[in-house]
Amino acid sequence: MPYRAPIAEFEFLLAHVAGFDRVSALPRHAEATPETVRALLSEAGRICEEVLAPLNRIGDMQPTRLENGVVRTPPGYADGYRAMAEAGMTAISASPDHGGLGLPITVTTCVNDMAGAACLALQMNPLMTQGQIEALEHHASEEIKALYLPRLTSGDWSSTMNLTEPQAGSDVGALTTRAEPAGDGTYKITGQKIYISWGDNDFTGNVVHLVLARLPDAPKGTKGISLFLVPKLIPDAAGEPGVANSLKVVSLEHKLGLHGSPTCVMQYDGAKGWLVGEENRGMAAMFTMMNNARLGVAVHGVSICDAATQAAIAYAMDRRQGRPLVEGGSGAIVDHADVRRMLMEMKAETFAARAMALDLAVSIDLGHAGDEAQAARAAVLTPIAKAYGTEMGIKVANIGIQVHGGMGYIEETGVAQFARDVRVAAIYEGTNGIQAMDLVGRKMADGGAAIGALIDALEAEAAGHAMGAPVAQMAQALRGATEALLAMEMNDRFGGSFPYLMGFARVLGAVYHLRAAAAGDAARGALARFYIDRLLPEAQGLFAQARHGAAGLYDLSPDDLAA
Amino acid sequence: MPYRAPIAEFEFLLAHVAGFDRVSALPRHAEATPETVRALLSEAGRICEEVLAPLNRIGDMQPTRLENGVVRTPPGYADGYRAMAEAGMTAISASPDHGGLGLPITVTTCVNDMAGAACLALQMNPLMTQGQIEALEHHASEEIKALYLPRLTSGDWSSTMNLTEPQAGSDVGALTTRAEPAGDGTYKITGQKIYISWGDNDFTGNVVHLVLARLPDAPKGTKGISLFLVPKLIPDAAGEPGVANSLKVVSLEHKLGLHGSPTCVMQYDGAKGWLVGEENRGMAAMFTMMNNARLGVAVHGVSICDAATQAAIAYAMDRRQGRPLVEGGSGAIVDHADVRRMLMEMKAETFAARAMALDLAVSIDLGHAGDEAQAARAAVLTPIAKAYGTEMGIKVANIGIQVHGGMGYIEETGVAQFARDVRVAAIYEGTNGIQAMDLVGRKMADGGAAIGALIDALEAEAAGHAMGAPVAQMAQALRGATEALLAMEMNDRFGGSFPYLMGFARVLGAVYHLRAAAAGDAARGALARFYIDRLLPEAQGLFAQARHGAAGLYDLSPDDLAA
Repeated sequence: MPYRAPIAEFEFLLAHVAGFDRVSALPRHAEATPETVRALLSEAGRICEEVLAPLNRIGDMQPTRLENGVVRTPPGYADGYRAMAEAGMTAISASPDHGGLGLPITVTTCVNDMAGAACLALQMNPLMTQGQIEALEHHASEEIKALYLPRLTSGDWSSTMNLTEPQAGSDVGALTTRAEPAGDGTYKITGQKIYISWGDNDFTGNVVHLVLARLPDAPKGTKGISLFLVPKLIPDAAGEPGVANSLKVVSLEHKLGLHGSPTCVMQYDGAKGWLVGEENRGMAAMFTMMNNARLGVAVHGVSICDAATQAAIAYAMDRRQGRPLVEGGSGAIVDHADVRRMLMEMKAETFAARAMALDLAVSIDLGHAGDEAQAARAAVLTPIAKAYGTEMGIKVANIGIQVHGGMGYIEETGVAQFARDVRVAAIYEGTNGIQAMDLVGRKMADGGAAIGALIDALEAEAAGHAMGAPVAQMAQALRGATEALLAMEMNDRFGGSFPYLMGFARVLGAVYHLRAAAAGDAARGALARFYIDRLLPEAQGLFAQARHGAAGLYDLSPDDLAA
Repeated sequence: MPYRAPIAEFEFLLAHVAGFDRVSALPRHAEATPETVRALLSEAGRICEEVLAPLNRIGDMQPTRLENGVVRTPPGYADGYRAMAEAGMTAISASPDHGGLGLPITVTTCVNDMAGAACLALQMNPLMTQGQIEALEHHASEEIKALYLPRLTSGDWSSTMNLTEPQAGSDVGALTTRAEPAGDGTYKITGQKIYISWGDNDFTGNVVHLVLARLPDAPKGTKGISLFLVPKLIPDAAGEPGVANSLKVVSLEHKLGLHGSPTCVMQYDGAKGWLVGEENRGMAAMFTMMNNARLGVAVHGVSICDAATQAAIAYAMDRRQGRPLVEGGSGAIVDHADVRRMLMEMKAETFAARAMALDLAVSIDLGHAGDEAQAARAAVLTPIAKAYGTEMGIKVANIGIQVHGGMGYIEETGVAQFARDVRVAAIYEGTNGIQAMDLVGRKMADGGAAIGALIDALEAEAAGHAMGAPVAQMAQALRGATEALLAMEMNDRFGGSFPYLMGFARVLGAVYHLRAAAAGDAARGALARFYIDRLLPEAQGLFAQARHGAAGLYDLSPDDLAA
């Protein structure tokens, strides 16, 4: 399926919606000029269109396999990975000190958007590396940095992140993998980890695992978890991949989608590891990687929104069925009002989800430069962007199937794959339920200050737009729901958290559309109008739900539920 | 995955929600006593639990294949089919004149619900036969009835329905398959048909195709379409399967789900066919089969709602993660407020979708007995039940994946299959967009009389319930949206049709919950409260959308869309 890199859309969003000029104005990002960014995005876009997109269906049809303990990736994946590595896609935002390009996270976000739309299963690989680089930059010793970072930024080696164990998923604190001091400053890591994306491959020289484990006598729960770097091949004195470490891929999962991306069960049997950061402070280090990954996964949703929308619009303009219904109509199904409704919805949601991801990325970049208000804003936006982006990925892919009619159900068409691939994005890196709990729990721990500041800004901005009245009104409803949640016990908040998050996202999305309408052409205005007229009202029902908290949720006993 | 047939739920719904006593009171259904119905449902339920459910994943993993032109079904399907046939599942509502049980469509609906939940791909087969029997009973000659009906009601032979051609999907009138008189009262059928469910199998003695085709010089469009019966094997003088007809399965589709059900491309090369009904009146005959099938497909959604909900509740009660959050909690994830929210939503939607299917079935049964108001009511409910039931199947299966977390994305768990299998239900037998157009077009052609009568009844009923005030209020909003649509040009109606339909369904669902709350225990009341508090408010946003009609939908040109 042809994929077209949306370079002009990124440029519009960066200039008129996400306020990227604030990032370019930072001394540390002086080189991130519009020209540089355009050149980089164009080259990355070309690779996505020409090299990665053709691999998408191949990887779905010929999944990565485990043969005698060796992971075999789909035909062409090695070349695709190499093209990404050569273009620096693993290290766009990594520090130049170790070979990175030092460009803003916002630029990485655009590139990930395109790569994920072209071939999500393969893009998962450099995404892991991006996160690991950031974690090592912040928490690893100089020795580890000097050894590993150049090889990760070059893409010669790749990365994984090992949290989950069979009994410890969302509840990371329940993990039992052990780390015992070996006496030489290293540790012996023993345990089993599951759901490890790209736990191995056949195209990088080494695979570097970051593994959460417990030291002997560590406190229970998350306060007793430490982070270890565990390479597949132990680097020799020259830093070259040396002897094999005591770890292996036990099996690969048979998944609904992302068939090209091996999801591994990993076994560590006294594997040699190095401590990253302080003892028992592993969660803090892992969160660096995880927050990065949450933006990355939000973008998975955006990627699939875009890919599915491009495919649906192309199909609807081509497929003839029935008589032309509108004057001057083409006779293609794009003329049908209900098909239009679906396409407009796909396009409006894609725009909003992408704008939110870029808005978040800009706040992260500004926060990294020391702006604490922006860092707090990013902390609020992270769970919203992750949950909304991925829910929209699922929804838009689903609408895309519908636009295709019977053809949508046939795998050859490729649009069912979008729905299968994106489904897990609502689950990994913290389920969307966990994101919602984070939003009303940790992100309200300041008494609602950061959220309140964001809502103030949204309301004020909406009030200044010609089409903004219903948006400002819904921002007030958001404020009311926020105050209602703040007044609740925590479990009540949790009961209302998911609809609250989704309603919050609707208000954000409407404001992004207002910005686009103000800066763009008539089509931007029409799309904003569609979003505000037809999708924003959904928030009213969502806030009504949120205000109920957990009321009634426990009125059925488990036995009643099962009855 | 264990499946439990919900016999008690059917009994409750028949007695207290769907008003099945009105059907039992009909002279023609005197034998449909509660005892008879319970015995039949119990036996069918046992078959579904013990014989069909174990085949579900087998059929997914080992899809039906085409080998040298012969369709090979998954291991065990033949036995599963035989068990259904022996229990009379193809002919519960068929006339006793030719071997049917003559029981109400409502009873068939319960049985189809269970069989679809147990193994949807296989249940598709008898569903086709049920529809064909009804079409032949109404439109075929006595000769055809005498020859074919006994063999279809016994399940010895099975059925298909052939409408779609590559260029003629939703636009059936564009079909080009030709029928030429052979001079002996039969016809030679030539053309290609696609998306033919169960176009062949290896476990029935014959396959009877109903094929839409054009006679020479037939008028263009749907007024020039005739219906033909085309057997795979031409019956000999004794009625036994004789020589092969000139037709074949060209290929099978590789689909997102329903892997056990062969979706065939059929080629007819001068195949021998018999006219069913009058020349050029094929659409009328086909609509008999199609309306039956629309209820059947609504039930597909219900089936998957139930199967997914049963699986999610069982998992949530078993899976331990995190500390118990509520006093006296089990420590399983069912204690988490957001998990509860998801389970309550699954259960509340499943109830409403099932109640709607049974409500429709009862109206069909009453209509068949001559009650024209009920027939008109059934005509209105058909597109709503089809679209709502299937949308809920998709939604509930999707929530079910989410409840399972990472496990939901692993195919072995079986819940991803529910989502894959049910997805096409929103597409076949008329896409849900087509259903919505039917609702605001054909079903409003009486100036809104039938819809108005239904809304009057809903509003009056809601007003009489303790929890009914918001439901009555939403029924008024529905009336307002209906009047707004009635005042619009047709293409404007179409633009608002889908959200209108979904909002309509929300009001219906709330009324069914009210009935259950009034007749049932505290748990029924709590589920009704959940639906009314949390899901019904969604209708407000949907009616807001509907009232916009097609406004703004064409403000983006196709080029703008593709930009």
